[in-house]
Amino acid sequence: MSLRLAAEPLPGIPEIVSGADLAGLIAGSGAAFGDDDVIVIAQKVVSKAEGRVRALADVDPSEHARGLAGNLDKDPRLVQVILDESVEIVRAERGVLITRTHQGFVCANAGVDASNVPGDAVTLLPEDPDSSARDLRTALRARTGVAPAIVISDSFGRAWRLGQVEVAIGCAGLQPLDDRRGERDALGAELAATVLAVADEAAAAAGLVRNKAGREAVVVVRGLERFVTAEDGAGAGALLRPREEDLFS
Amino acid sequence: MSLRLAAEPLPGIPEIVSGADLAGLIAGSGAAFGDDDVIVIAQKVVSKAEGRVRALADVDPSEHARGLAGNLDKDPRLVQVILDESVEIVRAERGVLITRTHQGFVCANAGVDASNVPGDAVTLLPEDPDSSARDLRTALRARTGVAPAIVISDSFGRAWRLGQVEVAIGCAGLQPLDDRRGERDALGAELAATVLAVADEAAAAAGLVRNKAGREAVVVVRGLERFVTAEDGAGAGALLRPREEDLFS
Repeated sequence: MSLRLAAEPLPGIPEIVSGADLAGLIAGSGAAFGDDDVIVIAQKVVSKAEGRVRALADVDPSEHARGLAGNLDKDPRLVQVILDESVEIVRAERGVLITRTHQGFVCANAGVDASNVPGDAVTLLPEDPDSSARDLRTALRARTGVAPAIVISDSFGRAWRLGQVEVAIGCAGLQPLDDRRGERDALGAELAATVLAVADEAAAAAGLVRNKAGREAVVVVRGLERFVTAEDGAGAGALLRPREEDLFS
Repeated sequence: MSLRLAAEPLPGIPEIVSGADLAGLIAGSGAAFGDDDVIVIAQKVVSKAEGRVRALADVDPSEHARGLAGNLDKDPRLVQVILDESVEIVRAERGVLITRTHQGFVCANAGVDASNVPGDAVTLLPEDPDSSARDLRTALRARTGVAPAIVISDSFGRAWRLGQVEVAIGCAGLQPLDDRRGERDALGAELAATVLAVADEAAAAAGLVRNKAGREAVVVVRGLERFVTAEDGAGAGALLRPREEDLFS
């Protein structure tokens, strides 16, 4: 059973504003996709459509935010927004602020981002990205009769490696993990602990064809039908390592 | 400029033994690939071809290895091999041993792996995976006149996320990082710190089409020509975060 993966961006997705009908825009893009495909959509456009945007002009930073901002050479209002999105500061030094978000992600700036947002506004991560993915899948099904799997992705840094990779922060209809522990290899030996982070690898593949400066927010990934499910499934929340099992930090 | 990514395994790569001619096997697989393509090859077969294999029967574990093995419920000889491959233990608890390897990778078991290896032998990571990638590229060029980029990949766990993703442990002819800091977004604002880990995302894409229980050790990835270079370049060593900049641990 040989597999073939393909990924390409959907053309013609315009600048997204609060309340935008993402399902309608994807359905109207003219791209062909089926129930077996995976649509990987950048967090930024989901956040904008959901109105998960804050204007820094409206933010009144606390003493704590001001102090942290001074140490990190950041805008105190931005730091306040990051703190509002976080449950824990993981690291704050040399201009870098890494936190654990309300959603459970450990990432730089709690995912708060000023690029590709008009004016002095910043985007926040969707409040519940798995729910966002399920809603988008349902809306696509209602509109087109086709319900591809949905992944919502963002670019995260890594502990010991430079550069960012896209990971899944939300998903629906895609098995987030492929647990193959206990299976045998070609020689009959048990496979080493092998739990493939399918949704993260799908997001990474989409990241390779996305042009961040452009508007290629939506990527169709084909060839993952063995991981696509009719049920929405556990979502990307299943990719979060429970805090007490966090062996790497 | 729309992009399209495709990834598919090379058929017919047999079980690899020490001294195997990987370039010859890839050239003889009948697969078409060009100078613009990326060949992602699993660490396991490179290690086997390079004889980076140890028989546990030949290993005499130290007191330290025995103590650690007792705590972790692991084979003391395996723990000794892991220690031999490591410069530092990052975490040792609940059956998990994470170390920093001589090559600078932080990963479980120093990349030492017993699956897909005959008998009681284990594979070690290549001593210098970037050098292995360059050598393979040179050998492919000599044999076929075509020099695709080469990525050597392995599956690594992540600090705060469950599951493993394939990452690049060696590469030649592929830009490992795409540094877009300072560029402007579609709205004219500067892009947030955006350094795409190209080689890791290429490895992840390959990971989605690999069948670990089978022998799909070699995957051709097409559509990354903008990251493929005539020079072998910095290699995957450029993906290692300098220890003093390690902000996440």
